[in-house]
This record gives sequence, structure tokens and C-alpha cells, in this order.
Amino acid sequence: MELTPEQQAEIDDARAARAETRRVTVPGLEELLYTPVPVLDHGFVRVIDYMGDDAAVVQAARVSYGKGTRQVSTDRGLIRYLLRHRHTTPFEMCEIKYHVKMPIFVARQWIRHRTANVNEYSARYSVLDREFYIPAPDQLATQSRSNRQGRGAVLEGEEAARVLDLLKSDAQQTYDHYIEMLNESEDGEAIDEGRDGLARELARMNLTLNTYTQWYWKTDLHNLLHFLSLRADAHAQYEIRVYAEAMLDGLKAWCPITHEAFMDYRVGGAHLSAAGLDVVKRLLAGEDVDRETSGLSPREWRELMESLGREA
Amino acid sequence: MELTPEQQAEIDDARAARAETRRVTVPGLEELLYTPVPVLDHGFVRVIDYMGDDAAVVQAARVSYGKGTRQVSTDRGLIRYLLRHRHTTPFEMCEIKYHVKMPIFVARQWIRHRTANVNEYSARYSVLDREFYIPAPDQLATQSRSNRQGRGAVLEGEEAARVLDLLKSDAQQTYDHYIEMLNESEDGEAIDEGRDGLARELARMNLTLNTYTQWYWKTDLHNLLHFLSLRADAHAQYEIRVYAEAMLDGLKAWCPITHEAFMDYRVGGAHLSAAGLDVVKRLLAGEDVDRETSGLSPREWRELMESLGREA
Amino acid sequence: MELTPEQQAEIDDARAARAETRRVTVPGLEELLYTPVPVLDHGFVRVIDYMGDDAAVVQAARVSYGKGTRQVSTDRGLIRYLLRHRHTTPFEMCEIKYHVKMPIFVARQWIRHRTANVNEYSARYSVLDREFYIPAPDQLATQSRSNRQGRGAVLEGEEAARVLDLLKSDAQQTYDHYIEMLNESEDGEAIDEGRDGLARELARMNLTLNTYTQWYWKTDLHNLLHFLSLRADAHAQYEIRVYAEAMLDGLKAWCPITHEAFMDYRVGGAHLSAAGLDVVKRLLAGEDVDRETSGLSPREWRELMESLGREA
Amino acid sequence: MELTPEQQAEIDDARAARAETRRVTVPGLEELLYTPVPVLDHGFVRVIDYMGDDAAVVQAARVSYGKGTRQVSTDRGLIRYLLRHRHTTPFEMCEIKYHVKMPIFVARQWIRHRTANVNEYSARYSVLDREFYIPAPDQLATQSRSNRQGRGAVLEGEEAARVLDLLKSDAQQTYDHYIEMLNESEDGEAIDEGRDGLARELARMNLTLNTYTQWYWKTDLHNLLHFLSLRADAHAQYEIRVYAEAMLDGLKAWCPITHEAFMDYRVGGAHLSAAGLDVVKRLLAGEDVDRETSGLSPREWRELMESLGREA
Repeated sequence: MELTPEQQAEIDDARAARAETRRVTVPGLEELLYTPVPVLDHGFVRVIDYMGDDAAVVQAARVSYGKGTRQVSTDRGLIRYLLRHRHTTPFEMCEIKYHVKMPIFVARQWIRHRTANVNEYSARYSVLDREFYIPAPDQLATQSRSNRQGRGAVLEGEEAARVLDLLKSDAQQTYDHYIEMLNESEDGEAIDEGRDGLARELARMNLTLNTYTQWYWKTDLHNLLHFLSLRADAHAQYEIRVYAEAMLDGLKAWCPITHEAFMDYRVGGAHLSAAGLDVVKRLLAGEDVDRETSGLSPREWRELMESLGREA
Repeated sequence: MELTPEQQAEIDDARAARAETRRVTVPGLEELLYTPVPVLDHGFVRVIDYMGDDAAVVQAARVSYGKGTRQVSTDRGLIRYLLRHRHTTPFEMCEIKYHVKMPIFVARQWIRHRTANVNEYSARYSVLDREFYIPAPDQLATQSRSNRQGRGAVLEGEEAARVLDLLKSDAQQTYDHYIEMLNESEDGEAIDEGRDGLARELARMNLTLNTYTQWYWKTDLHNLLHFLSLRADAHAQYEIRVYAEAMLDGLKAWCPITHEAFMDYRVGGAHLSAAGLDVVKRLLAGEDVDRETSGLSPREWRELMESLGREA
Repeated sequence: MELTPEQQAEIDDARAARAETRRVTVPGLEELLYTPVPVLDHGFVRVIDYMGDDAAVVQAARVSYGKGTRQVSTDRGLIRYLLRHRHTTPFEMCEIKYHVKMPIFVARQWIRHRTANVNEYSARYSVLDREFYIPAPDQLATQSRSNRQGRGAVLEGEEAARVLDLLKSDAQQTYDHYIEMLNESEDGEAIDEGRDGLARELARMNLTLNTYTQWYWKTDLHNLLHFLSLRADAHAQYEIRVYAEAMLDGLKAWCPITHEAFMDYRVGGAHLSAAGLDVVKRLLAGEDVDRETSGLSPREWRELMESLGREA
Repeated sequence: MELTPEQQAEIDDARAARAETRRVTVPGLEELLYTPVPVLDHGFVRVIDYMGDDAAVVQAARVSYGKGTRQVSTDRGLIRYLLRHRHTTPFEMCEIKYHVKMPIFVARQWIRHRTANVNEYSARYSVLDREFYIPAPDQLATQSRSNRQGRGAVLEGEEAARVLDLLKSDAQQTYDHYIEMLNESEDGEAIDEGRDGLARELARMNLTLNTYTQWYWKTDLHNLLHFLSLRADAHAQYEIRVYAEAMLDGLKAWCPITHEAFMDYRVGGAHLSAAGLDVVKRLLAGEDVDRETSGLSPREWRELMESLGREA
């Protein structure tokens, strides 16, 4: 991730400014504010603004006049109770706003989370940067043989080199032609004065899906947790998971009690079906249950044994 | 509106606290923070927290690294353009949180605005206050004869006295019985030690719809404008309109440019249908158009003439 | 629940009408269409319209040209997989519309589910029916001593009689005064020709929260499942749970495979936290774990033992 | 737009099937059901399912037991009133589901409409078709000089030929490399048995934004009207506008009264600001208003004069 000197200066300016406020503040998150956290080869995620903290969740759950208790122990118990029992509305009382730069195919997964506010950089209005995501060699995974939407072993040697070469050269070539069709340099000057350029809204269609875009993305804490539970999960595509992981660090600085409860109840936990719960009870009672006597499908059996850390 | 000394102290504490922040702050709104604005006889609305300002709208529209321009003239033009042309997403980048106390029948209208976050005081969990909305005498309107959901002239004399008496005595009686069934005083003590009380979730059903409830309500600037355009409108019921009007004042302190554009384009404006626009064009061309030649229904004709300030 | 002859005739007419369609139809749900299922003393829920079926979930998951497979076995495996792994969007492709009559305090819980479409009977526009929810004697529960929002034992004898008497007489009295203030009989005639009535939007505030209202409520299958998982749960208030249970029966007729998966994975299942899962693993490994060595809070320990059917 | 014989057979099968239903049916829309309407060079939009009709809007507005009036004149007046006065919730009671094939850059605009249900063809799971959008020669517009997100004159001669050539050859080349990296033919066979293919979720990033994708998209009538008002508008990009226009035809078959009201009030109408309305009133009073005396900015003045069909 590289910033132009102008961008860096704008970020430095924003970080240097200080104001007095009566609002709830979170010193740990203030420390991170505006600073881009690099993700992938040219991407980043940075927190631009926030509202509320752990105590605001407590305050909303109690609908009180004051600012929530200052006794962390009580707040912790309540927040854990709320998260455990799916009382999700108090978590909606906190809000966070990010500026994110990511490849277009990542943005296309991200935008599926509808309960959020988004302003994307407009390629109808402006020229996109010459930046493409090229996977690091250790991410050049083959198609998984067992999972239609998963990755298998990593490509190596000539095959890896061929893939990297194709990705790089195709992205550069289509971007070069994008600029040629626009007849406009990245700083907005006509390249060839003698001809008109193709409309920006048309020329952009020649770009590949690993071209970087950027947006402002704002959501509440409940929906952020939902996003993170899906996108920081091992089944999520690596290229979006690394964003979710970077955001988890920010969450820890912002709402440490909620973060802890989230890690305990959502990330590390497991959901058992009625039939799965029955298997556990029978195992605990000393019964020797196998797949045939479990009533589970082979796939469900395998997933359950995995959760319990047993061999399928 | 009366606050207990404890509530007043909590508000004073919140107002007295100051912290340093790197976030955008709005001094005019900071001044109002936490202070309840009285509405109706026992209600209020107060701003609890906010995120963003006019410049944040501009920043999101441009997806920039910095904090938006500081040239108010440019920002003003862009904000007016965005509002005029229904580019609503940048307004979603600002967020505001209120604490509101209002009669239940007002809460039932308010909750229809779905794109918001709400935590209401729970009458399953706690005992409601002995507070009911009793209209001021100048609000004791008769049913309108021309508009099935509107108000007509104001009741006077004995008829008004009778209505006020019924509203007061029924609310007090049903509340007294609520407490008797709960067998619990407002401060949580058993009234009659010798018997159990009815479950709170059941006893509450005896309360009348003018009983006050309260909630935390959080929304983004775009959805706030939508709420205000419907609820500060002359067709809205008076009892919710007074809340919307109090919130309009807060909006002016928070985002003055957006407030101004909103007043110009939404509140004071008018929407013309294709047929209505055609009538205007014909009138401007000097033609003498009347209802029959307009192609409009009597109702549409009346509404159009009203918009144009002409006699129907 | 009683219907007027006119209402019954309208329902009979709707049920008698038949048309040919190219759309997916579900004979089992067609059989139930328009018929009110009685709930509580005067309420009901009836299905008015629907779109899609189990196969439509499969079709959407595959984005195919045809109507989904006709091999029920394959569809079943996919639907169970989707529900188990929180791939919720295909379930949004089915839609259902209900007409519901329920007490206002139930409507106030129901409306908190925001991802739905609602049209409520307007008490600004029309006069409400003289119908109130009065609990059956076996539902007159006391406040639970251990759970601030739960019910305890059932009231009996004089105490029960007193509660029923208060609920009935207060509802009748406030309704009588509502009609007196309106000066309008239930069929819209002025009662006393010599005076004007209070505006409907004001008079309604005198009604108690057990007055019945009604609405059209439409949602998609995913959000219906979410509603049912919260409202058919043992922790939900009885008066809304009975509606959810009636709707579960309709779900079984509409999408039997989804219904079965829902009962297996959501209703009968359990969510284990990371710490809870660890306890289960240790127990399965033969370790003797108690509360102290579990790392769980007393409440979490109790909840876990309950899930596993063991003594806390 | 070309369909494979298998796809055509599936569509024919779906159209041939008939069932009896008690639900509301719309013969005019039944006639169009399942049939793809070609849009752009390889795209289409087809209606897959629907719920409700004009009468369902009326029924919801009245919360009645029957099926809405059969007197079209009354329904028409009410629907027009509802649309004119932004009473939008009754329109949410109708639902429609489409299957759409469109270029990815169009899908990226479309998905911004959040109140809808979407299932997109997964390029993590399956291989995309070799189909790209190449603009027709009369759509090869230059960048507008006056409007940063608009189109100007059409390119011609060598310049047009060069653009078409670049778009075609780049799309074909990147697709060829996509297949080579996947090492998988479009029908799922390994091309080169001796090596593993790159994971589908990675290989897709080499595709250009004019590659076609497809999805199921379901929304309610209110949100459909909002979509159409923005995307059938002259300011919308041509490539999404043609989809909106095809959907407008379907709307006319489905809900003709709502369609008519929509064309009158939204499509052909104009919104006047407070200041703009003031100008109209002064003009109607015979005053000679010009830009300077109008109080409008040059841009607002130009837009107002355009609305009124007058020279700026």
C-alpha cells in the first residue's frame, strides 16, 4: 500500500487535529483513527469515525439517563448475557465508519451485507488508479477437490509463474487500453489532443476484477459482528478474510468487552442441531455412538466430530 | 416534563465531562448534548450522541482521504446538488442518537420508520412511570368533517371539560389498578406482603395508550430527513409533529447546510405530476385553464391550486 | 374469535375463487388459504398470499433456468446444508403474507421485526372494535421471582378473580368513554346529534393496551424463520408465542423440508460457546469437570448443564 | 441473447405447467411469465414469480377481509392518492421475482438497491460463461464535456473501430487465460490432465467488468418503483436503463393502475424547491423574473427552466 504525499499529508492533518467533546470517547480507538492498516498488496482499511463504546451498549439495554455504569464487572456480565441470548438491538447503538481500499471482486462479496451505508469511488465520474491485486505466491491455491468453493494445495514452479504472469500482464494491458480509450492520463490531462475519449462509464468495463476500488463503509456494531462472524470465518475467501481480521483488531481497541464476548460465543463456539445434541448426550452417558446409529447424514456426522475434536 | 434529582444529576454529570477527540465535532450540537427539550406535557427529546457533520457528507460523496473541504461555499453547492437530485447515500454517513420520552400512541407511529435502531424501556422488566399525556385545551380538536384522518375545530366549554375529565380519570384509574395487580410500588417494594403480584408483562396491558414510554432511537441523517419530512409535515398528527419540530432545531445546530437545503427542497417545495406540470406550462403560456380542461381530478386540481397559491 | 356474517362471506368468496396459474403452487397451503386460525380470545392469523416453495429455495441457490429439481432427496440435502451453514439468502426468495388480529401490546413486540411489510388498521381513520384480550385463568401468572421478565405460578381464587375483574371492567369503561368522546357508534353514526365528537386520532389514546388491532404483515421465509425462532421460543411472552406456534403449522404446510430443517437446527439445537465446547470435550475425554474448573460463570454453567440435560 | 436447448426446454416446461390456485392472479403477467426479454447483446430479464396485483394494494390500505373492491374506478382513485401522497407501505404488499443476466458493471450499480433479495451465480463455485457486453456502435459515446458522469457525441470511424477492437480482444484474451488458469473447460472437464487448476475464486479475478453474470432478484412493488424511478431516468447509465425500461413493460402488465399513476406522478413530474415554486408563482402573477432576481443558483435556474420548458 502506497499513499501519495498529498494523501499522507491529509491523514497526518486529520490525526493532528484535536477537539474537545462531551461525547463518549475511546482512547484506544482514537489512537488508531485515520491510520490505514495495510491489507493485501495495495489495499487498506482505516477507521474514520465511531460512535459509542461498550458502556453505550449497556446504557441502551437499560434505557437510562446516565452514561451506563462505570463498574466494568457489571457491564461485562450484561454484555455477555446480551450476546449469548441474541439480544442484539443494544449493539446497534454503536456505529463505526471505515475507509477501505480493496479489489473489485472483494467489494462484490462485501456489498452483499445490506445493513450498512456505502459510498464507493465512482468510475463514472473519475479515473481509477493503476493498482491490481496480484496474489502472493503462497496464496496461489489450486481448486479444492472436496469443496467446490474452497482452495487446495498451493501451485508451485512453472505453473505458479505462469499464473502470476497472466494476472499481471492482463491487468496491465487492460488498464493501458482503458487509459487509451479514455484518452486521459491519471491526472486528468488529454493524452492525444486530436481526439475525444470514450465515456468513463463505458471505458471502465475493460478493467479486470482485481482492479482496486475504495469506499466509505459505515455500519452498527451488531451488523459489524455479523459481518465479522461470516468473513473472519475459515470458510470465507482469504482475500476478504484478511480485511475482517484487520477489523477485528480495531474492534478490540473500540469495545474490548464486546470483542471478548464475540470471540467466546461466536468465533470459537459451535452450533449443535437437535440430533447433534442428542449424540453428545448419548456419548456423555457412555454410549458408543457411531455414524450409523447417530441418525446424522455422513456430512453432518463429519462436521459434528470435527467440532468435538474427535475422529470421524 | 419533570426529572428526578438523580436523573438531573446524571445529565449534569454527562454534560460536565469533557474529553479530547480526533473525530469531527460540532460545537453547536455539543452545546445541546444530553439536555432534554420538553415536548408535550411530560415528554422530551434529547441528543445523546452524534457522528459526522456537513463536511462528512461532502467527504463521503468524494471518497477522499482528507476531512472534506473547508471551503463552505463549495460544500454548500455540493450538498444542495445531492439533496436536489436524490443522491441520498452520502447523507447516510452521519448518524445521531436520541433519548425520547413520548406517549405510547406516538411511539406506535414513530416505530413505523424501520431504518433506525431502537431500544425501548421494557414493561416486561420494569414498572412504568405514572405519567400520561393529557392534551392542552387548545389541542382538543373535533374530528374533521372533510378529512377522515384530520382534526376540525377545538372543543370548548362543557364538552372539553368532559373529555379532559375522562382522559385523566381513566388513565389514573387504570394505572392504579396496574399497580394493584403488580402489587408493587413504583420503587419496587411489595405493597401487600401477603400476596403475589401479577406478572409485569401481563399487568401492563391495563394501561391506556397515552401512558408515557421512552426509548433510545438512532438513525442516519438521510433517514432522519425522511422522518422529518413526513412527521414535521402539516398532515402529521400534532402529537408527533411537535417532536419532529424539536428535532429540526437540533438538525440546524448539527448540519446547518443540510438543514437549509432540506427546508428549501423538501419542506417548502412541491411535487408536480406530469399533468400538473402541463397545467403550469399552459398557464405560463397565457392559456386560461380550468378544472375541466386540466385533465385533473377535482382533488388533484384543488391540491395543485393550493400549491400555486391560487383559488381552486 | 367471531366474524361478522359479512366478513365470513368475504372469506368464503375468496376461498371459492379459483384461477389457473403458471406459478409454483403448494396444494397444502392452498387448502389453508384465507381461513383464520383462532389465537387467544379474539385474535387470529390467516395466510392471505404466498410466493415460492421449498423448490424455489433450491432454484435460487443454483440460479438455474428451470424450476429446481424434482428429486426431493437432493433438495432436502441442499436445504439442510443451507440452513446449517447460515446461507440465508436463498430462503429470502419465498414470501408470505398474513392477516393478523392481536392485542396492541402483542403488536408492539411484533413490530420490532423490521424486515417486514406492514399495514395496520388505522385508528386515526376508523373506529376500533370493542374487543379486548382477557387472559384465560390458567394464564394469570405471577411475576417470576428468579427471572425479571418471566412468569411464575398461576394466581388462584380471589386474587385471580380480582385481576380478571379489573382487566374486564377497565377495558369496558375506557372503551365506553372512547365511544362517548368520539360521539360515534361502531357503525359510524353520531350518537348525540347535538355535539361534535373528539378527533379519532385523539380519542384512541383512552384505550387500554389489550385492545385488539389488526394488520397485514408480509415477510420472506428467512425473516419468518428468524421471527419464529425468537417468538416460538420458551422465553417469548405467551401471548405472542401462540401466534408463532400457529404460524409454524402453516410453515409445515408451505415448505415442509425447510420446516423440518428449522426444527432440527434452530428450535431443538443449542449454541455452545468456546468455553462451553471445551467443557464438553473435557467431559467426553472422561474428565470430571465442575463449575469451578469449567471457567464458566454460574449462569453460563447452569445454562450449559441444562442444554446437556445434566444436573447443574 | 442465446439460450442452450436445455435452457429453452426448461423455460418451455415451466411455461407449459398449469396449476389451480386460490391466490390473486394477473392473466396479463401470467402470459409473460418465465420468458426472457432480451436486453443488450447477451442479457435478459424475465419474471419468475409474483404476488399480488393492484387490488392487493387497495386491500392492504384498507386492511379488509375481502379481496379489495372490484370497482376499478374506486381502486384507481385510491392508488393515485396513495402514490401522490407518499403513502408507500401498501405498495410493499406486492412482490415480484426476476431472473436477470447482465454485465458485472451493471450488476454493481443494481446491487446498490439494498431493499431486495438477491442470489447471484457464484464464480467461486462455477465457471462463468464466455459472454461479454460489447456496446453497439451507436452507444460508443464520448465523455461529456459538461457533465462529469455523462455521455457526449458518438465515436465514429477509426476511433470507434479501435475501441470495439480493444474491448473484444481484451475480453476474449482475459477469458482464455481464465480458462487456462482454471484448467477446466466450460463443461467442467480438465483440459490438461497433468496439472491442477487455479481455484475458481482466484481465477475469476482475471475477467473484465463487461463479463456477464446473472442473478435472481426479488423486491416489493414500492422498492421496484423506486428502482425504476432512478434507473429508467434519463440520467441513469444507458446499460442499466435498458433493463429498467424492459421492467416497466412488465409492470404495466402486472399492475396497470399503479403503472399509470407512476408514469404520471414520478416519471413525468417535477419537484420544485421552495424558491423554484416562488419563481413559478411570480411568473404566473405576470412578473418578469430572470436568473438574477430569482434567488436561484445558475444551475438551479437552468434546471427549473428546463422543467418548465422555457429557455434558460
